Amino acid sequence: MQIDNVVKRIEKDGLAAHLSDGSERTVIGVIGDDRPIDRRAYEIMDGVEKSVQVLQPFKLVSRDFQDYDTIVTVKGVGFGETGVKIIAGPCSVEDRGQLLESAHAVKEAGAQALRGGAFKPRSSPYSFQGLGEKGLKILAEAREQTGLPIVTEIMTPEQLPLITQYADMLQIGARNMQNYDLLKTVGRSNHPILLKRGMMATLEELLMSAEYILAEGNRNVVLCERGIRTFETYTRNTTDINAIPVLKSLTHLPVIIDPSHGVGKWNFVTPVALAGIAAGADGIIVEVHPKPEDALSDGGQSLLPERFADLVQKSRAIATTIGRK
Amino acid sequence: MQIDNVVKRIEKDGLAAHLSDGSERTVIGVIGDDRPIDRRAYEIMDGVEKSVQVLQPFKLVSRDFQDYDTIVTVKGVGFGETGVKIIAGPCSVEDRGQLLESAHAVKEAGAQALRGGAFKPRSSPYSFQGLGEKGLKILAEAREQTGLPIVTEIMTPEQLPLITQYADMLQIGARNMQNYDLLKTVGRSNHPILLKRGMMATLEELLMSAEYILAEGNRNVVLCERGIRTFETYTRNTTDINAIPVLKSLTHLPVIIDPSHGVGKWNFVTPVALAGIAAGADGIIVEVHPKPEDALSDGGQSLLPERFADLVQKSRAIATTIGRK
Amino acid sequence: MQIDNVVKRIEKDGLAAHLSDGSERTVIGVIGDDRPIDRRAYEIMDGVEKSVQVLQPFKLVSRDFQDYDTIVTVKGVGFGETGVKIIAGPCSVEDRGQLLESAHAVKEAGAQALRGGAFKPRSSPYSFQGLGEKGLKILAEAREQTGLPIVTEIMTPEQLPLITQYADMLQIGARNMQNYDLLKTVGRSNHPILLKRGMMATLEELLMSAEYILAEGNRNVVLCERGIRTFETYTRNTTDINAIPVLKSLTHLPVIIDPSHGVGKWNFVTPVALAGIAAGADGIIVEVHPKPEDALSDGGQSLLPERFADLVQKSRAIATTIGRK
Amino acid sequence: MQIDNVVKRIEKDGLAAHLSDGSERTVIGVIGDDRPIDRRAYEIMDGVEKSVQVLQPFKLVSRDFQDYDTIVTVKGVGFGETGVKIIAGPCSVEDRGQLLESAHAVKEAGAQALRGGAFKPRSSPYSFQGLGEKGLKILAEAREQTGLPIVTEIMTPEQLPLITQYADMLQIGARNMQNYDLLKTVGRSNHPILLKRGMMATLEELLMSAEYILAEGNRNVVLCERGIRTFETYTRNTTDINAIPVLKSLTHLPVIIDPSHGVGKWNFVTPVALAGIAAGADGIIVEVHPKPEDALSDGGQSLLPERFADLVQKSRAIATTIGRK
Repeated sequence: MQIDNVVKRIEKDGLAAHLSDGSERTVIGVIGDDRPIDRRAYEIMDGVEKSVQVLQPFKLVSRDFQDYDTIVTVKGVGFGETGVKIIAGPCSVEDRGQLLESAHAVKEAGAQALRGGAFKPRSSPYSFQGLGEKGLKILAEAREQTGLPIVTEIMTPEQLPLITQYADMLQIGARNMQNYDLLKTVGRSNHPILLKRGMMATLEELLMSAEYILAEGNRNVVLCERGIRTFETYTRNTTDINAIPVLKSLTHLPVIIDPSHGVGKWNFVTPVALAGIAAGADGIIVEVHPKPEDALSDGGQSLLPERFADLVQKSRAIATTIGRK
Repeated sequence: MQIDNVVKRIEKDGLAAHLSDGSERTVIGVIGDDRPIDRRAYEIMDGVEKSVQVLQPFKLVSRDFQDYDTIVTVKGVGFGETGVKIIAGPCSVEDRGQLLESAHAVKEAGAQALRGGAFKPRSSPYSFQGLGEKGLKILAEAREQTGLPIVTEIMTPEQLPLITQYADMLQIGARNMQNYDLLKTVGRSNHPILLKRGMMATLEELLMSAEYILAEGNRNVVLCERGIRTFETYTRNTTDINAIPVLKSLTHLPVIIDPSHGVGKWNFVTPVALAGIAAGADGIIVEVHPKPEDALSDGGQSLLPERFADLVQKSRAIATTIGRK
Repeated sequence: MQIDNVVKRIEKDGLAAHLSDGSERTVIGVIGDDRPIDRRAYEIMDGVEKSVQVLQPFKLVSRDFQDYDTIVTVKGVGFGETGVKIIAGPCSVEDRGQLLESAHAVKEAGAQALRGGAFKPRSSPYSFQGLGEKGLKILAEAREQTGLPIVTEIMTPEQLPLITQYADMLQIGARNMQNYDLLKTVGRSNHPILLKRGMMATLEELLMSAEYILAEGNRNVVLCERGIRTFETYTRNTTDINAIPVLKSLTHLPVIIDPSHGVGKWNFVTPVALAGIAAGADGIIVEVHPKPEDALSDGGQSLLPERFADLVQKSRAIATTIGRK
Repeated sequence: MQIDNVVKRIEKDGLAAHLSDGSERTVIGVIGDDRPIDRRAYEIMDGVEKSVQVLQPFKLVSRDFQDYDTIVTVKGVGFGETGVKIIAGPCSVEDRGQLLESAHAVKEAGAQALRGGAFKPRSSPYSFQGLGEKGLKILAEAREQTGLPIVTEIMTPEQLPLITQYADMLQIGARNMQNYDLLKTVGRSNHPILLKRGMMATLEELLMSAEYILAEGNRNVVLCERGIRTFETYTRNTTDINAIPVLKSLTHLPVIIDPSHGVGKWNFVTPVALAGIAAGADGIIVEVHPKPEDALSDGGQSLLPERFADLVQKSRAIATTIGRK
């Protein structure tokens, strides 16, 4: 009777049911695409102990859907190609001098793209919030001087027209990974997107957020592991190194690693960056600052340019060792 | 020499330094308001092992700043008063019949405000996303019929003019707790705000997000503990019951609890709701649905109206026992 | 072919297989008692995406196995009865005066059992490690003077003969929840056991550890929720209040709550204790110390006797309100 | 007055106090070795908001105490030397054939030590618990045939005389990381110890557990990162890759990584092992099984011998790239 009710409900939802009777429980297999259905609703029915998902809830981002690797090209830099790609620069654009100095330094050291925040999500309203459009203009000038494509954060849907005038790749920050309006908005543009994992988001949720972007038509998405929040407080976050091979096995999208936020202290950035490459990441994004102790944000985790140059060399050596470059 | 450099840097930042020499380390006490300064930058200086925050980073929300309890009044319902306040209703507005039936049921059972989502943040782009303005109109009709004030979620800054036409209290959902643009926008309105703790947010971060709203001028903020993400997977989230007395000790703002999301299964909602009241919460927000097994979202954690009526009675009994009502 | 192999393996393990074919995946239901089998081994077979457990892995502790509540009686104090039971006392036995003073104070305030550690698991080898047998003798003297049964921690199997000479209930501490040798040893005695949840243990693991004790023949087990480790650092641990109704629904064993370790600061102990009772706990265990600021361990989370007396009164009031006493 | 009391208490504890007055708070610096003192007790004093630890609580394991790297030699294999060391073998000794086949396979592939459990901590009392002494004898026979030193788990203090007859290195498993009696017991032997991090232990707690062993006189301790428990459930645990460089910076003890437990699925083991080496680990410990699908435990995360051989080659290549071998 309870089983009958569940079977009727399954059929009402347009799916098919198969029964397997056991001595203590009956397993009801549900056949069909249940992605649009709230699986939990079944658990409220009399006699149902739990419902379990079999199919993965994402589709367009899945290797089941596309079996070859996506290459996301940002001004000629192809994320997902054999070669490992390196994005570097300061956390925030603070002033013209700091940014241009940083841009030239990371260019010389071998970076292929420049990062720098003009709009900054800060946990305190009293902290430096970024230079806004002025920062974007400085970034554009740095591109002109160095040829490096620009990666910068977008915080709200309304910023899209402004930021796309200046930037080559739009970063969705960890705190906005489930800002669905923002995901849909960038999904309707064609700009390359750097989607950072939320600090307490599961890999499945990260992929679902990417699915939001692809579902709107934009397939140029690069995923970024940047550390998750755990009980360990010695480091700022816990870099989830497992995420690299797991994501590479589940999705065709490129995957990079952000060791700067993952550890939060400059002296651990290089080992963790190298670990990311050894684990199969398609690239890294690193904070570099010419004068870290004067940085308005994230100084503690920024590398000096000369240390970054050393990281670039070691990265390329490890990439070569595992058959990349 | 290293110490000299740190002291100079402290003074350059407009603060004062006091030294305490130990045999293995020297402690440098920093005096002054360091809220706008990035404490981590000091850790990069030679000879600095770690920096520790002494003052709390929030101000306007703190009991140090205001020593009496804030009462947030929503159409005559005063959150933070002695009496415990109860918000109830379905997760989503699904159609006119469902919502009006729910509204009358929760009204009769003793609820003082009606919840119902018109705009829904969903982890999958393929899930029901809410009725939008049509849902708001149904909510307004329910208010007309029952007199209950309306609590509904705002997801983006642009929705503000629309939603404030219909709703009496704006909910900032857990996923948007650090959507700073949204926080600033609602901070510039004068509408009462229900700010939910992010499932990954520390109590300090929740208070900093409230600080964003107060810093813009809106002091009508009610905080809501709704469960955090932990390693335990038997329940949807882990209700952080400690958060209730801790928040009440740190801030003058009212604090309520959402047991529905905290446990995720209807049969555990009532005990956890009662726990929240016993721990000192100023109210609860509960999902109630006349036909949970047909709900388009969160059916598994919704109470039937008759079970909700029982919860209301027990809640009032416990409130009375601890000197509330 | 892949399916055939899995089915053969299932049958080799003495179980039966039922197939449900879907368009993208096939669900294979496995029928039989798979508790002794390593489910993960199936996941390595070609074509298997994941294996999911349907039956709970515990048996003797389950409500499926015994449908009435177990009452664990400790010198006439029945844990699991309608009345809520209260254990109190200092973290450690420090000296005769401190313990006897504490014992009389908690007795007068209404406690029904006395706690006090003679063997202390400390994370530092340089911290106070307990008085050992001398502490046990002081506890026995306190029992003689007050009539309160004694609850004290056992750390190793060899301590069993010694501790059972003095104590009425043996506590297995959080760090030893998966010390299987210790679990088996106390399982072979008939002494009542207070089994604390490990700070990193799921509810299922807690129940499996209790299963170890019952499987050896000792059914006198009381479970204790004492806070889990999460990302929140404001409190010492996060009291998992959900655990109370969840455990009560899964097992027939009594469940109590330890708010002292759950919050770690005395001023939050009372609200969280009351929350535990409102959520359905069968009792509480609380740290009480006549001079908390001089305590050799856990002073910061210990209540003064007069505050404990207030907690007892409020606990009984809430218990009565929800039909207990 | 409040300050006076705190200062008096500090002096009573044999320490010295230095005051730094601020406008809102006073910072009291405490000078002296406070390791044996319970810092939290101060927080209960009137007027004290919080107490903060400045000195690290561990001593013998610290680089402050010993500035050169410890080499732990196990039958000629030097953990902590420039060369990366590899331990491999099945989770459990299941029978003579399986173990000897595994031993020869890992030897040929380049392993330097053989792992295999004779005593197994299992979360279920109904799971395979290991062969006990019979398993130890099989391990000894494998050593005779291959020359590989033997690493096996010790679960209780009483097993010490038996296990040291057969094993060359004693493993303390994750669940026993804070089994202090066991730590003290192995501390009094002189056998090399492989101390695994508990799945929810902080790095500080891991180092404190090592301190227990060193404090008893045994300095032959190798630390092992094996994954921590987080909210992410796609992998069995979350490998804390940050732990490698952090531990190497804090302690002179060798640090290795266990990718098998860190990810829990064989197909992610190799990338995570390589990541560990790139991050600076002194070695790896990997589960290898000739027929993983028939393993009595951990089959799902065991590598086939040929895949392990590939891992060894890649490991050595990366080690060479970063100046090891």
